[in-house]
Order: sequence, then C-alpha cells, then structure tokens
Amino acid sequence: MDYKDMEITVIKIGGNVIDHPGDLTLFLKKFANLPGNKILVHGGGKLATKLSAKLNISAKMIDGRRVTDSQTIEIVTMVYAGLINKNITAQLRSLGCDAIGLSGADAGIIKAVKRSPVPVDFGFVGDIPDNGINVTRLLKFINMGLVSVFCSITADEQGVLLNCNADTVAQSIATAISFAGIPVKLIYCFEKQGLLADINDDNSVIPLINSGNCEKLKAEGIITAGMIPKIDNAFKALNAGVEEVVIKSHLDMDDSSKGTKITAT
Amino acid sequence: MDYKDMEITVIKIGGNVIDHPGDLTLFLKKFANLPGNKILVHGGGKLATKLSAKLNISAKMIDGRRVTDSQTIEIVTMVYAGLINKNITAQLRSLGCDAIGLSGADAGIIKAVKRSPVPVDFGFVGDIPDNGINVTRLLKFINMGLVSVFCSITADEQGVLLNCNADTVAQSIATAISFAGIPVKLIYCFEKQGLLADINDDNSVIPLINSGNCEKLKAEGIITAGMIPKIDNAFKALNAGVEEVVIKSHLDMDDSSKGTKITAT
Repeated sequence: MDYKDMEITVIKIGGNVIDHPGDLTLFLKKFANLPGNKILVHGGGKLATKLSAKLNISAKMIDGRRVTDSQTIEIVTMVYAGLINKNITAQLRSLGCDAIGLSGADAGIIKAVKRSPVPVDFGFVGDIPDNGINVTRLLKFINMGLVSVFCSITADEQGVLLNCNADTVAQSIATAISFAGIPVKLIYCFEKQGLLADINDDNSVIPLINSGNCEKLKAEGIITAGMIPKIDNAFKALNAGVEEVVIKSHLDMDDSSKGTKITAT
Repeated sequence: MDYKDMEITVIKIGGNVIDHPGDLTLFLKKFANLPGNKILVHGGGKLATKLSAKLNISAKMIDGRRVTDSQTIEIVTMVYAGLINKNITAQLRSLGCDAIGLSGADAGIIKAVKRSPVPVDFGFVGDIPDNGINVTRLLKFINMGLVSVFCSITADEQGVLLNCNADTVAQSIATAISFAGIPVKLIYCFEKQGLLADINDDNSVIPLINSGNCEKLKAEGIITAGMIPKIDNAFKALNAGVEEVVIKSHLDMDDSSKGTKITAT
C-alpha cells in the first residue's frame, strides 16, 4: 500500500451534540459529505447517566470525578458501544458514508491499560499508551473505503473492558497516524463556535491559540477547567506532528474559516 | 485474492450459554483454539429481558411472539451489540483470537429489510434477503486474519436498526459464503448434546437428520416447535450448498463425532 498521498482527518463529536438527535443528524450529514479520508470518534452524552439513574445505580464520585465501577462499565459499554455507536453507524450508512462502528477492543485497534488504583481508584478507566494504536489496521480499513466510527470503550490485554476519555482517543489516533508519517488533522466538534473569550458571547471566538498565549488564557480563566484537558490533548497532538487542531461547532465542520485553531508555535 | 483453498466454519452460540459466564468462557476457549477460518454469531440470552424488566418495559406479545417496539430495539441494541458483543470480543482477544465485534450494520455486511407490518406488526424486526450478505467484505476481514463476531442487530438502508434472528443470521452468512463458491460448515452450539429423542435423556442424541426422517421426527413431536426454525434454517443452508450442518453442545465444539448432523439426503 502507498500512503504518501494520503491525508486523514480525525473528528471527535462531543456528548452535548449526541444528546440532541436533530443536531446529531445535521452533523452526520456534514460529516458524510466531507471529502477525503476520515475517522469519527464519539463521546457519550447524558444517555448513560440517565440509564444509570433509571436503574438506581448512583454515580460514585471521588474528588468530583466519576468512578467507573463494575455496574457503570456495563452501562457505558451498552450505551456507547451499543446504542450510540450503532445508531451513528446506521445513520451514516444511510447517508452514503461507508461506516464501520468499532470499539477500541475490536480488531485490537486501541489497546488500553487500566489506570493504576494508586493514588485514586477510578475503577474501569483506561489510558492509551504511546504504542496503543494499531495504525496498520486503521489504514487497511481506509484502503477498503471504510470510515471507522469509534466509541471510547476499549479493552486491556486481559480482556477487561475499560472506559477511556473520547478526546484522548481522538488525540491518540491522530498522533499515531502522524507518527506513521501520514498528514493528519484533528477536529474537536462541540456545541459552541470555538473557544470563547466571553462564555456568554457566541461572537467572542478566540481564533488562535498557541504556546505563546495559552498560559496567559489559562491564567485569565478564559481557558476554563473543563477546556484544559482538550487544549492539553491538542498540544500533545501538535507536538507529535499532527498538522492542525481545531475546536469548532459541529455545524461549521465544513467551513475551514470557523472555530479556534490551535497551533504549536 | 485466491479463495480456492479456503474453508470457513460459521458457528452460532445460543443465549442459554451466554447466560452462564463460566460456560461462555469454556466455549470461547474452545472457539479460540479451533483451527482454520471461522466466524462467530451470538444470540442474546436473558440479559435484555432482565434489563427491560428493571426498566419496567413490559414485553408486548402477539400470538406468543415478542414485539420489538422502539424501546425494545434500544434495549437489544445496547445488550447484544454493546455488552455481549464487546465482552465476547475482548475475551476472545485475550485468548489469542484476533476478533472484531460487529453488528450487521457495520461495514454494510448484513443488510436487512423491516418485516412487513401485515398481517402482524412485530415492530423493529429484520429479515435478511438473499443478496443481504456482503461476502467480499467478510472475506477481506478473513484475509486480514480477523475473526468476525456478529450479534443479530442489523440495519436497513434507511439507517433503521432491526433485530434479526441469530440462527437466521448464521444461516444467511453460511449460505452466502457457499454461493461465493467457498466450502463452508455451519455449527449451531447450544446447551444440549444435540437433538434428543427423549428430552429427559441426554444420551438420546439423534445422530443424523435428513430429508428422509425429518418429517417423521416432526410428526412424532421429537423435533419440537422450538427446534423447527433451527432445522428449517439447516435445510435452507444445505440446499444452498453448505457442506455440513451440526447441532451440538458448546462443550463438544472441538469433537467432530458429537452432536446431531443434518444432511440434505
């Protein structure tokens, strides 16, 4: 196989979009029409939390962070790898996009390791090591014309299912593709138009974040706690050679002028 | 690709085995060690019924048959395509079997059509037309060294998820492979040692069923109502050129002398 002319776009779609079926369908139409090689990673949204509540499974929290206990990993596997992944895949196929819905466990594409229970045991949560992505398999699917659609459920080598952060899954895939010498872009789609200087003003999109202004924006509280992991993932990808990282609205995916562009320098 | 020396075994594992994790693990160990090209199709078991009960979704029945309403298709998609499919896939991978968990919607491998609401509307139930299996894709996965693991959830061309009968999914896959000119065997694994002449005597396995004794066994009530669809699926596969159909215990999968063999003549 010859990959020298290949370029791949990795797109992650956030949970808030998934929670609104109309928005999700609008996004999927744009995604299906996007030219070139592409990979979709989706988050979970509130469906898993709602299902847990209906089943009287209370969310266990440590330091404000959710613990994925044995009941919760079953719930998220059902909702993310089952309901959401198969609905997105079937919708994309009906839109002419040759999609295959996958968890990280499938075909061993994303190998994860269970996070150490020390100092805090977050349960069935996985981290993706640097060599965790099987790029050869990903590229074979692309060569078959397939568009891989990943949820954030993975497994370790012992066959234990683990919940990973979907932003990190997208970053790890983009990083691994870049390491294989293939140009790759990473787009984080969510319900806002980009990173906002004023959270109450949708027109206050910060067009560019780089290592020069990032620390200042964090210090000023403009990059808020919830955004920091996404920005850190973006820089990790850029430092590994990913060409471009953009945070933008799911409705602007086909407009390259929109959103917040993050660059290394 | 050259398929002339290829042979494929399609194995379906029933719900009663899935309901007993110890039995399932024993089966998966034998399946992982089975030499040659293989495809697994799994049923659902009682997990979906239990989840429905916990969520106070009552089973709607017509003429003793379950209706798959909009809530139920969500439940079975979660349980079959999510929880069961990913657990089986992750377990097989940990046993050295290069598995990929799939629904019929993924990569368009199994296209289904929604069953007509006339005379009885069974809801989101799918049937697989004669040209419903994309054998080319199945063979490409086999050539990549992948072992496909299918649940019985499929989709139609409009992106609507549908629940199919897992026995029929296995038969349709085997039949399509046979039509492509590749030798194929079909094995239905369940909790009994084969078709029993006396339901209370595990040693009363009928070794052979063919068109000669099948009608007699039905008339005598030895092939009971629950078994008739399985036997009909077996004959459909045999008539389409499938080499061999066997109904046997999940624990005897690696012993070719065991079970009930079904032959065309």
